[in-house]
Formats: sequence, C-alpha cells, structure tokens
Amino acid sequence: MTDTPYLAVDLTRLESNLTAMARRCADLGVALRPHAKTHKCIEIARRQIDCGATGLTVATIGEAEVFAAAAEQTGCRDLFIAYPLWVTAHTGARLREIARAVSMRVGVDSIAGAHRLAAEVARPDTHLEVLVEIDSGHHRTGVAAEQAGQVAAAAADAGLDVVGVFTFPGHGYGPGSARAEAAAAEVVALRDAAQSLRDNGIDPRVISGGSTPTVEFAEAGALTEIRPGVYPFNDAQQVELGSATVDEVALTAVTTVVHRSRSRVIVDAGSKILGADRPGWATGFGHVLDSPRARITALSEHHATIDYPEDDDPEGPARIPDPGDRIEVIPNHVCTAVNLVDDLIVKGQGEQSLSWRVAARGRNS
Amino acid sequence: MTDTPYLAVDLTRLESNLTAMARRCADLGVALRPHAKTHKCIEIARRQIDCGATGLTVATIGEAEVFAAAAEQTGCRDLFIAYPLWVTAHTGARLREIARAVSMRVGVDSIAGAHRLAAEVARPDTHLEVLVEIDSGHHRTGVAAEQAGQVAAAAADAGLDVVGVFTFPGHGYGPGSARAEAAAAEVVALRDAAQSLRDNGIDPRVISGGSTPTVEFAEAGALTEIRPGVYPFNDAQQVELGSATVDEVALTAVTTVVHRSRSRVIVDAGSKILGADRPGWATGFGHVLDSPRARITALSEHHATIDYPEDDDPEGPARIPDPGDRIEVIPNHVCTAVNLVDDLIVKGQGEQSLSWRVAARGRNS
Repeated sequence: MTDTPYLAVDLTRLESNLTAMARRCADLGVALRPHAKTHKCIEIARRQIDCGATGLTVATIGEAEVFAAAAEQTGCRDLFIAYPLWVTAHTGARLREIARAVSMRVGVDSIAGAHRLAAEVARPDTHLEVLVEIDSGHHRTGVAAEQAGQVAAAAADAGLDVVGVFTFPGHGYGPGSARAEAAAAEVVALRDAAQSLRDNGIDPRVISGGSTPTVEFAEAGALTEIRPGVYPFNDAQQVELGSATVDEVALTAVTTVVHRSRSRVIVDAGSKILGADRPGWATGFGHVLDSPRARITALSEHHATIDYPEDDDPEGPARIPDPGDRIEVIPNHVCTAVNLVDDLIVKGQGEQSLSWRVAARGRNS
Repeated sequence: MTDTPYLAVDLTRLESNLTAMARRCADLGVALRPHAKTHKCIEIARRQIDCGATGLTVATIGEAEVFAAAAEQTGCRDLFIAYPLWVTAHTGARLREIARAVSMRVGVDSIAGAHRLAAEVARPDTHLEVLVEIDSGHHRTGVAAEQAGQVAAAAADAGLDVVGVFTFPGHGYGPGSARAEAAAAEVVALRDAAQSLRDNGIDPRVISGGSTPTVEFAEAGALTEIRPGVYPFNDAQQVELGSATVDEVALTAVTTVVHRSRSRVIVDAGSKILGADRPGWATGFGHVLDSPRARITALSEHHATIDYPEDDDPEGPARIPDPGDRIEVIPNHVCTAVNLVDDLIVKGQGEQSLSWRVAARGRNS
C-alpha cells in the first residue's frame, strides 16, 4: 500500500477522456494538438498520439527538450511551444538543437521578439515555424488581431517562416457564460488575425486556439487546430465550470485523514501536492471524490481542511471519514498538482498498479 | 547566464537572517529548531546548526529521511516531525529506521493516533519521543489545551515517551494585530497544555511553538523552543505582515520580461515556480524587488502579470522594464516556491554562482 499522499490516475477514465476528445476533434474537422504541460508524461503523450493527435503543445523549451528526446517512444515528431519566447544566445542554441530532432513551432508576439528569435535561430540548417500570438480577450500576452499581420511581416522579413496565428482564450475560465463568450471572442480574433496576415501577403495555414473549457463551443471553420490541456484528467475547476462531470475526473490525490472534529476533517494532502490555485469563483481548494458536497475550505502545505455537509439531503448526509481512513480528493487545477510529484500511480482495470514518471516536471525554463 | 526563470538566493542576506534569528533565540533563552520544510537544503540546514540551532523540524517522514541521511553533512542529529502522523505498518518501519540514525520526535493529537504510533514503533530497540499537538487557535490539527494531558497519558500508557507539547500559531498569518494576538493565544494554550500534562503526572520538558510571523512576540518563560521556517529567506507575505523588511528577503525568482503594454508587463515566471498562494489579505501574488509598489496582479502557470504604479510619487515613477529585461520578483510564500525547483542558484559576494540541491523537494509522504 503506497504511503499517502500520492496522485493516482484512473486509467479507464483517462483513456475514455482521450478518445472522447479525439472523436470530438475528428467530428469538427480540426487537428488536435494537446498541451502536454498538464501531464508531462511520456506514456500519456504516446496515448494522445495513438488516438490521432497531430502533435503536442508545450509551454517551455525545457518541456520541448523532454518530448523531443522521447519522440521514439511517443511517436510525436511535431512540437509547438505556445509561448512568446524572448530568445537569448543560449536558449536559441537549445531551440536549434530541438529543431534537429523534431518539427518545431514557436510563438512570437512582438517585432522585437521576432528579431531576437531570427537572430538566434534563422540558420540554413535550422527549420522552425512561427505562429503569431493574438490576445483574444485574456489580456496576458499576444497582440491585437489587427496587428498580427504587421508582426508576421516583420518576422518573415527577418527570415522566419510564419505559418499562422494562435491564441489562448483563458478568460473562458469563469462562471456563467464566460466559456461561450470566450470561445466566440476567440473565433472573431483568430479570423481577424488570419485576415491581417493575408493582407500582409502571408498565408495563415495554421489557426490555433482552444482550451478544455472552450472546446465545447469550437467552430469547425474558424480554427484549424485546438490545444486543450486539462481534458485527460479534468479537475475540480472543470467540474465547477461545467466542462467536465465528476465521472470524467481521472486524477485524484489519495490522502489519509489525520484529524476529525465533527463534520470537519483534516487530511495529509496540502498545497505541496494539490497546488494552491483558487480562482475567485471557485467554491474551495478542491472537491472530494464520492462526496460531491464536501469542500476543501482551507489549505496548508501538508493539511487540507475538508468540511462535509451536515444538513439533510435527498441523498442522505455524507459519510464523514475518521482518522486513518483514506479518501480521494480532486485538485482544483490538475496542471499544477501533477507538477508537484515525480511519479503518478496508475490504477488500471484488474491489473497491478504501475507508475508513470512526470518526465517534464519542473521544466520551467 | 542561467536561463530564466530560476530561484536565486542572496547568500549575504541569508546568512544575516540566520544569525539574527539565532541571536534573538539566544537572547530569549529558547532553543531554535528551524523548520526545514522551507528550504529543504542540506547546505542551509548545516548553516542553521552552525549558528546554534539544536535540531531541525520537518513536516513529513520523507523529509526526515533526507535529513537523517545527511546528518554527517549538517551536524544535525535531532529531528522533530511536527505533524500528527497516522502511522501504518510501512510508515512505522520507516520511522524506526530513522530513529536508528538520529534522535526522533513526532507529534500526536489523538488517543487513537497514539495507539497506532505505539503499535508500530514502541519496540525495545527504538527510541522515539512524542509531543502532543495543541490547537492554539489556528483550528487545523491539535487538541484543546485542557485535553493534552489525557492524550499524553494514553500515549504513555501505550508505551510512548511523551516529553511535552507543541503548537503552530498559524492564525498569526493575518493583517493588523493578528500576529500579536496569535502569539499571546499560543502562550496561554501552551501553558495550559503543559499544566494538563503535569496534572496527569507527565513532565512537559519541551514546550514548542513559534513561527516566523509570531517569533517577534515570543515570551522567554512560556516556551522552551521555537520552530520558525520562513526566516532564512522571507517572502512577500512576511513583508506585508510586517515580520520582515524587503531588505531581509533573501530569495527571488529571476525572470525575463516577455511582453509589455504601458505600465503592465508579463514575465516568464508563473505559478509553476512562484507557487499560487494568495491569502485574502495579500495585495497580489508577489512583489518586485527594487519596485516596492509594483504588484503581481494575475498569475498563470508560466506568466506573471505585473502592474507598475503610473502615478506621481515622491520617489518618482517606477522604471517599467521592457521585453528582454531581467527582473527579480519576490514570491508570496517561499516554502511552496522552493518546492517547485530542483536547485537554488546561490549568488555570493564576489564569488562564482553555485547551486544548492533542494534535497527534500516533493517529499510529501
């Protein structure tokens, strides 16, 4: 019996989530390029490719290095760093090395950034494609849609191979109609940006968007590929946003109850394994599998405070666990939880538990 | 030049923080048992022992294993797991193994937990001491002060060597008078708990409390040891609580600006290196070194959004950095930031940069 706390993957649910997303993309007629920052695992990347993903998205050069080195095992020879990198001599050399092993795309969102990238990677023996990042309303990185062509033209003039545009509709992480509104804003921004490239004589053959919360609203004609990350596992945020059900959650933290006071219990999983993400609209720091109304109401590094409902309920009051009981909790944000462990424990159907290495854990740079 | 983002330690400030806390404890006449969960580094543990710490505190059995294995290098042969462990056959065997290498103390906060511990570790060849955890107002784990003697007596009856009481005044993490009030509540709770042990015929020779925010208010007679964790580095939370100045912050994330829109910049350090901790009273997700009024107002996994003040100021408006500039940001909560990296980059006075392994990173169980 593995000592708690640890992160456990439900293999049946994981594979069901992978095939459902692959089917949705096939039906839409868009390419699926999952974001590997969520799982950082060779074994999951391989399953995504096996289901028909055309490549992987990553967030950093370090993540790209891990998946480039694992290309034989995953079958993935096509990586996109969806980030407006500011490239130095050293990171430029790292990019050129990756581009020798796999097809590479990177983001740019400024003329200065494009010049930096060109200075370090535009070499006769390096082929690397560029997408211009658009701000579709999340207001993080990215240029306004109508400026995309200007950045693209400057990048092309500097010797880069500009193939399209991308955005991240992160403002879809919100309650109510946020998901639908962000998806609609994304379509408009990407269409305008694509037109801006055409106006500057550049063919936008890649129009890339999407996220797990907005993919339900994706329109076939507007995007050529989507990059959801969270969908293999899902998490408490996705459940609260309405983009996944509890039955589609494939990763939990297995914890031991160490303390109980009436309807409140303390378990041995804290922010150092669940992550501390808690957006303003979230009802807590996480949920409890099998107790839909219980909430993690406080979090320390090695303690989660879980409050169970005490009131009458059609389904009957929740069974409140006692010290020594093991329960499974659902992290708010699975991407940051997975990044906190070296290995995921995989529970299969009838087979022995095995573990998968979080191969790209901590690859921040 | 190390690729960003990375965590950097200012060695001069670190050593100044270590000696200042050691001096404060010597003046108070209390033992200093720093919490190693903050730094998880052999090199810092050694410096703490060199400054006069009597031992180390850790949060988990895994952390205890790392520091027990490093006892030769650190000089620390005395560990306290300040946690009410629920011990299984496997974790009991791990505890017995640690107790062969170093002096060991662990926490209990229930009679059932004490029985579990005794069943797995009370052996003729194992010596392990026990402290009863008290709830002094943080309402996480721990028993009420007046119940301490009852738990202690049950533990002693089960064959455990009970040597005292401990508490964590975590409710001192709050604005205004929270620190002073938590420190005062801690003193009362520990005095009552110690008396409760005496009433049950057990000598409370260890009365252990303290945290970085409350240590300023510690009373000499009330505690025999304190367990601050954050003080070697400090962080934005400590600065906002008033328990440290910006000049006492010894750890920063070195980041590259990747985007700027007027007085807002985006840097390449996100929640996967800063941690996502943000208590309700905090003014943001972190500060900027050298720009006291700038705040991290939003955080994604690999992006921090920093808003600089635009208004006139006696000191003049802040210089707003441009893409490609490197700036240093101060995490809100250094314990969770350090746990996200494999190595800390150490900047010394005039010497070459070196790196320290975060040896106990990810040791959650």
